[in-house]
Amino acid sequence: MDALDRALKEGGFGAYVAFGTSGDANILYLTRFSTTDPILYIRKPGERGLIVVSQMECERAAKEATTAVISRADAGFFDVAKEESNPWRVLARVIGRQVEGPLLVPPHLPYALGSELAREREVAIDGGVLARMREVKKAQEIRCIRDVQHVCDIAMDRALRMIRKAKVRKGLLFQGAIPLTSSFVRSAIHQVFVQNGCIPSDTIVACGEETAMPHRRGDGQLREGEPIVIDFFPRHEKTGYFSDMTRTVCRGEAPPEIAEMFGAVRDAQDLAARLIRPGVSGAGVYQAVVDFFRDAGYESGSRGFIHSLGHGVGLEVHERPGLGPSGEELRENSVVTNEPGLYYPGTGGVRLENTGVVKRGGFSSFTRFERELVL
Amino acid sequence: MDALDRALKEGGFGAYVAFGTSGDANILYLTRFSTTDPILYIRKPGERGLIVVSQMECERAAKEATTAVISRADAGFFDVAKEESNPWRVLARVIGRQVEGPLLVPPHLPYALGSELAREREVAIDGGVLARMREVKKAQEIRCIRDVQHVCDIAMDRALRMIRKAKVRKGLLFQGAIPLTSSFVRSAIHQVFVQNGCIPSDTIVACGEETAMPHRRGDGQLREGEPIVIDFFPRHEKTGYFSDMTRTVCRGEAPPEIAEMFGAVRDAQDLAARLIRPGVSGAGVYQAVVDFFRDAGYESGSRGFIHSLGHGVGLEVHERPGLGPSGEELRENSVVTNEPGLYYPGTGGVRLENTGVVKRGGFSSFTRFERELVL
Repeated sequence: MDALDRALKEGGFGAYVAFGTSGDANILYLTRFSTTDPILYIRKPGERGLIVVSQMECERAAKEATTAVISRADAGFFDVAKEESNPWRVLARVIGRQVEGPLLVPPHLPYALGSELAREREVAIDGGVLARMREVKKAQEIRCIRDVQHVCDIAMDRALRMIRKAKVRKGLLFQGAIPLTSSFVRSAIHQVFVQNGCIPSDTIVACGEETAMPHRRGDGQLREGEPIVIDFFPRHEKTGYFSDMTRTVCRGEAPPEIAEMFGAVRDAQDLAARLIRPGVSGAGVYQAVVDFFRDAGYESGSRGFIHSLGHGVGLEVHERPGLGPSGEELRENSVVTNEPGLYYPGTGGVRLENTGVVKRGGFSSFTRFERELVL
Repeated sequence: MDALDRALKEGGFGAYVAFGTSGDANILYLTRFSTTDPILYIRKPGERGLIVVSQMECERAAKEATTAVISRADAGFFDVAKEESNPWRVLARVIGRQVEGPLLVPPHLPYALGSELAREREVAIDGGVLARMREVKKAQEIRCIRDVQHVCDIAMDRALRMIRKAKVRKGLLFQGAIPLTSSFVRSAIHQVFVQNGCIPSDTIVACGEETAMPHRRGDGQLREGEPIVIDFFPRHEKTGYFSDMTRTVCRGEAPPEIAEMFGAVRDAQDLAARLIRPGVSGAGVYQAVVDFFRDAGYESGSRGFIHSLGHGVGLEVHERPGLGPSGEELRENSVVTNEPGLYYPGTGGVRLENTGVVKRGGFSSFTRFERELVL
């Protein structure tokens, strides 16, 4: 009996109902079934859950999903659709054939479906049962994320080698005769990912002023003596788990402001790594970093340290727990990032990001990669 | 004034409101802003739309989004959050500060937000205005999809070369001494994608009995004399557009049933290509293929032709219009797949899929790649 079962029993719910593709991390977590077409998920108390899929997916789902599987036809879809044209109402009536009583639904259930269901019965929104289940990772999940981080380390090594070995002419980086651009380095990183069974997302390779915008993807030729921020979060194509990593480097001597920011960010990351452990609040660790930066002469909020200190990582790249101003108590076996950063328009940005697991002994980083500014 | 404006004016709505990441194709379509953290989108009649983003994203959003941009702070998030702890209620109250009157929302708006909004005012669900806008592609969008299809052609060429050049020993395929596996070929395909600025999804390289399950990703070493289905739908990382392509091949002589199925599928694809044009219904083209298969001795439904004939392609890999039993009238400049397939457990599956644009002169395929079963 897991936390969802307990919530269903305690709340007197007939079932937990979700609808979406495996792009929805809750659906993937509950089914382990990868699908680009939306499926209906129904979990009654004490049962292993049921998915309703199209005819063409039945055989695959029976092999791959951790749930029971029935076809849309067997669930009565086509019978209902004869009497009803609105597809959301059809879905609500199909659910009605499977479940009696009040329903528990995820906050992201499509409104069109939720409002149909709510016409006929009580619909309660899960206030965090699933998110809290997903927050504490099982050993197998921790291995999956660690494996992805290992691929990240290989990719970062490849990217930094390219930057280190580049020729510099008039302040611009070249690989042989070819300009070494953001997109060239990004493509090399992505090759490492796909060679290792991972799917890239919005990989950042940003240089110079662009680095003051934390999520700017980066464009154009890389330059000497300017900060280069490399941030990526690949997802394993089989397991669906992410890891998340950032390094900031500079080819050749760094501007003094950037070198000072780098030192402060590295020290802040070390400080946070010492503080993270089960029972402390994410907000407390965040505040300690804010205080540390303040003492070092850096503000937080709209300039300087403008984002949170970290976030959970799992089947979503950003999930619980948060290490920001409203971060709750950290729990053992959560996987989180530790990613302080400083950003000043006109000067640039510095960010260092490790991913690791919250253990009784403290933060155990999966990321072992060196943190050196100057290449 | 676009169709959304007209819908807002005609319905007397204060605004169209959406909430999500750019993983939500509507959000990406309306903002062209790529984000892994959810943003609030508000579009009042006659305006270009507004997004509310975190402080750290303001500068980037101002450069990248096609909308106006304000920070969460300026939208009043933090003021409201002092009085209210439920984050969905906070969001609803922030929307209340920006918009008066009834709201139009997408069907996929999170139920937790929609139900909060509906406490205070009328909330109507968009029955397809956005989907129909997205269904008809602009010239620029057509170019984007065609560019991705070009990358698909290169990737398919690379995959088929590997299979063609493989050594065969005891019915198994090898590249030199290394077993040629599904995941090896998949990785080679993905390398072509990332070298060309595309992100792979759930690429299928399935062999033998697995091919009877249309979306089975495929595992293990490829074998001689068995169908190999290769299906992929990369997404361009900058533009967000997909294309979708499938070929079925066989290294060495094909089993007679597979060769016959291949001939029928190829003829069905040609038939559909001749029928697709503006004004005909997706259901009509689908039915013509069902009839064609029936006359050739193949059933449709739970065996044989078990999926629809095709689907729209754009910022989602499956979008309007549908070419299945309930497919509506096709419109000029829609981009659709033409992908008949036949599947028999124990025998295997055959699918051929082209992507192209619906033109007055008929279906103009972006996919020019050969359709040959035997390699």
